[in-house]
Amino acid sequence: MAHLTYFNGRGRGEVIRMMLAAAKIPFTETFLTERQPFEKLIQDGLLPFKQVPLLKIDDMELVQTGAIVRYVAKKGGMYGADDKEATMIDMYYEASRDFYSKFLPVLFMKTEEQAVKDAKAAGEDKYFPALEKRLKETGSGYLLGTSLTMADVGFLEVLLLCVEFGGDDFLDDHSDVKQYYQRLVATPLMAEFLKSPFRKRKNDEQYIKEVKRVLNRE
Amino acid sequence: MAHLTYFNGRGRGEVIRMMLAAAKIPFTETFLTERQPFEKLIQDGLLPFKQVPLLKIDDMELVQTGAIVRYVAKKGGMYGADDKEATMIDMYYEASRDFYSKFLPVLFMKTEEQAVKDAKAAGEDKYFPALEKRLKETGSGYLLGTSLTMADVGFLEVLLLCVEFGGDDFLDDHSDVKQYYQRLVATPLMAEFLKSPFRKRKNDEQYIKEVKRVLNRE
Repeated sequence: MAHLTYFNGRGRGEVIRMMLAAAKIPFTETFLTERQPFEKLIQDGLLPFKQVPLLKIDDMELVQTGAIVRYVAKKGGMYGADDKEATMIDMYYEASRDFYSKFLPVLFMKTEEQAVKDAKAAGEDKYFPALEKRLKETGSGYLLGTSLTMADVGFLEVLLLCVEFGGDDFLDDHSDVKQYYQRLVATPLMAEFLKSPFRKRKNDEQYIKEVKRVLNRE
Repeated sequence: MAHLTYFNGRGRGEVIRMMLAAAKIPFTETFLTERQPFEKLIQDGLLPFKQVPLLKIDDMELVQTGAIVRYVAKKGGMYGADDKEATMIDMYYEASRDFYSKFLPVLFMKTEEQAVKDAKAAGEDKYFPALEKRLKETGSGYLLGTSLTMADVGFLEVLLLCVEFGGDDFLDDHSDVKQYYQRLVATPLMAEFLKSPFRKRKNDEQYIKEVKRVLNRE
């Protein structure tokens, strides 16, 4: 049983939750909503960089989203069969993080309209064509091999944002990407995750308030 | 023999160059200084996300810095002995990237003074204490085990920036970090790299101009 400590919202925690679900690793959660418990974690030496998410798993206390996601991917057999496959997965996972970063202004509720437009432009220019090409190469509906990897989960997180912020027609000009997205969403483990309490709500005022309180940025 | 395609400056290419040097993988370089050769790489399908660096190695064409660095680390035996060690290395490598990001405003020549101050504050608050604690734990002068890993190279890149932009006394209040930095710089492979033509000069007007020309952002 793993245990995730993060805010009660998506943020950096969401891709970890998705990966745990995809890797079939059961987990429980602690939500930080006040400053004091966060300070205690720092004092106890559990947050070397004074940042969450924190995942307790296999007697380790892991921080840094990219490190946690990779460990979970290895445990779940979602990181390819050899170094070359893992590198291909890293390429697409890292690209999904770049694409994700385009949504950060939206997620923090600034200039939503322009940010969605910028994210769409980045998708059209870089990420959708790359996905289309790659999906044609593998022919399996996945970015590597014939099953879900860390790379697919990384892109699923962003494609969910695309549709949530950009509307159902965001992917309409890219039918292969849309099919890929629809297939991922329908994967039993992902479908189950998305309707579970582990899937967090869209950022709202309450979430922003809690994060600021914990980080002393009120 | 590997081949790196990037701009004629540090940027996202520098940590790859450092890793290739540390892994004793010989490489040559192509510098992008004009738009046309960059467009040709895109047309030839070598840049799936329309971004460099691009590393040709072992009959693969790799993009995305984080993916490239990990592949080189594996080849060079710089990624630990098992999944747990690799995860520890990922934690520190990812933290070094967060710290590096504090220097981005400096590197793009905006508000240098304030950015250096912010980077210093982040170092004092998060990264130097974490390094001190970790170095005490390993006792080897390295962040994991008894030899140079991807995590050390990641931090070396940032500590070089600390001293370059903040001055020789930037690390004076953290003697353990300063010793760590001095030892890394003196490692034969890193010492050799730093005086070689592979080590690029500090960003200057010429570099910024070339990058903008290649990316059509003039």
